[in-house]
Amino acid sequence: VSSRVAIFGGTHGNEMSGVMLVNLWVQNNTEVQRKGVEVQPFITNPKAVEKCTRYVDTDLNRAFTPENLSTLGGGDLPYEVRRAQEINRMFGPKGSPEAYDVIFDLHNTTSNMGCTLLLESSKDHFNLQMMNYIQATSCLVLLNEHPLLKYSTSRLEVGPQPQGVLRSNIFESMRDILKHALDFIELFNAGMEFPPCTVEVFRLSERIDYPRDDNGNIIAMVHPNLQDCDWEPLNPGDPMFQTFDGKTIHYQGSGTVYPTFINEAAYYEKQQAFATTRRENFALCSVNKWQTFST
Amino acid sequence: VSSRVAIFGGTHGNEMSGVMLVNLWVQNNTEVQRKGVEVQPFITNPKAVEKCTRYVDTDLNRAFTPENLSTLGGGDLPYEVRRAQEINRMFGPKGSPEAYDVIFDLHNTTSNMGCTLLLESSKDHFNLQMMNYIQATSCLVLLNEHPLLKYSTSRLEVGPQPQGVLRSNIFESMRDILKHALDFIELFNAGMEFPPCTVEVFRLSERIDYPRDDNGNIIAMVHPNLQDCDWEPLNPGDPMFQTFDGKTIHYQGSGTVYPTFINEAAYYEKQQAFATTRRENFALCSVNKWQTFST
Repeated sequence: VSSRVAIFGGTHGNEMSGVMLVNLWVQNNTEVQRKGVEVQPFITNPKAVEKCTRYVDTDLNRAFTPENLSTLGGGDLPYEVRRAQEINRMFGPKGSPEAYDVIFDLHNTTSNMGCTLLLESSKDHFNLQMMNYIQATSCLVLLNEHPLLKYSTSRLEVGPQPQGVLRSNIFESMRDILKHALDFIELFNAGMEFPPCTVEVFRLSERIDYPRDDNGNIIAMVHPNLQDCDWEPLNPGDPMFQTFDGKTIHYQGSGTVYPTFINEAAYYEKQQAFATTRRENFALCSVNKWQTFST
Repeated sequence: VSSRVAIFGGTHGNEMSGVMLVNLWVQNNTEVQRKGVEVQPFITNPKAVEKCTRYVDTDLNRAFTPENLSTLGGGDLPYEVRRAQEINRMFGPKGSPEAYDVIFDLHNTTSNMGCTLLLESSKDHFNLQMMNYIQATSCLVLLNEHPLLKYSTSRLEVGPQPQGVLRSNIFESMRDILKHALDFIELFNAGMEFPPCTVEVFRLSERIDYPRDDNGNIIAMVHPNLQDCDWEPLNPGDPMFQTFDGKTIHYQGSGTVYPTFINEAAYYEKQQAFATTRRENFALCSVNKWQTFST
């Protein structure tokens, strides 16, 4: 049973849809109430939200490591490390009896990705069945499989939206996905069986950096033919970057890939211009609340 | 004669087109060289560029006030105030014999404004003739008339582009405007006469804030019918905002206006959702280098 659900907003303080939705639901939770489900909307990085910045000291989204969660140091630790420890105490630790059953983490991207749920395990049939249920909202699945599962949430990315901007279309898309996801959880808890089905997922393949000079400075931009074309096929020989002196750099991979996170603002510092994915179809088992999951 | 021209990038450190163009031209200025013109590309806020943030202590674009430029205090002053003083010493003070003749200040906006030159005086026939010359690039003029002229630059805004992102189409548009503007200056210096003509300008009228609750929190977004519709007519009764509970707020003004800076990220903190403008046609005198200007 998924009786305790958290909705995180503001993990990155300048991704406004999640910030505004969660603030709204903290004031009035009628919209996210479901029978038999305790839903807790929560601003995870209030200092970054206040400053309308991605983070204050370090990226909160990358701060939930076993080292960070177990380190001592109190006030001397980076703000987001302290915050990760607090959040882990409140909503985790994963696997403990007090842990929340489902945590949605609401993000925006400057990439033209539409709605995307990021999953960390292809064995996560609960989330995959949920995705299949909310297919009506055309949400895609990006699979970034981790051999060792850490503290993990269901991360929802919706774009394109600039940092610090609230666009009504993006806000309403995110709201709609959450509505359907909570409906799924309510039905699941009520005992509904979701039958076997096939879902399409995009499995993360490679991270591609911008072309750079010897000093690490960028010397090319995402090519106009690739810009905004998230999830569309990129074939060997297709234009990928355009240098500042007008030359085209072509994709040299060995087969068709599906690029995503194209030209995401926050990934310049992470040396990533876009990520490639490969399309796969998964056969899902039926799920119901009487099963035991190994997510 | 306009023999000394400066090109400022990075006045806001997360507006990437100007940052990248100026960095490029600092390394190699061939592209911006013109006969009889000394062109100086210059990063105005290097600390903000390094952090990829709008500003470090205060908005540099609003820091060139007479008080700031004359205040003492050295290292205790906000970074951008010290920087404004340095820039004023290097490129100004306005009206002094050492002052640069033309200063382009390169900006990006998250609004769908295309290319816009912001002017502070309708008597600035030099810049208006330059705009007329580069009309081929479809650059618009936004006039924000100030009764008292302060230290002023020719501010170019190009969008839409998210903060921290470099889009090739926006980068190349900005580059193209600069190319034509420098061509104009070269021709002007060579003695070309630019004949009388009529130009269209958009005169800044009102700044419209987001609807807010008693605590100052935003309770509505830019309406989807208005989002991205910069420079398109907004008539009394047209949708303007959409509240989080789905109500539409209509424009109540007295006549047709042309909105601009719609949903600009940096203007949330300035309590501005968009600005209205009114369209005017100006008859311009001919200009040539033997005239005296009162800009």
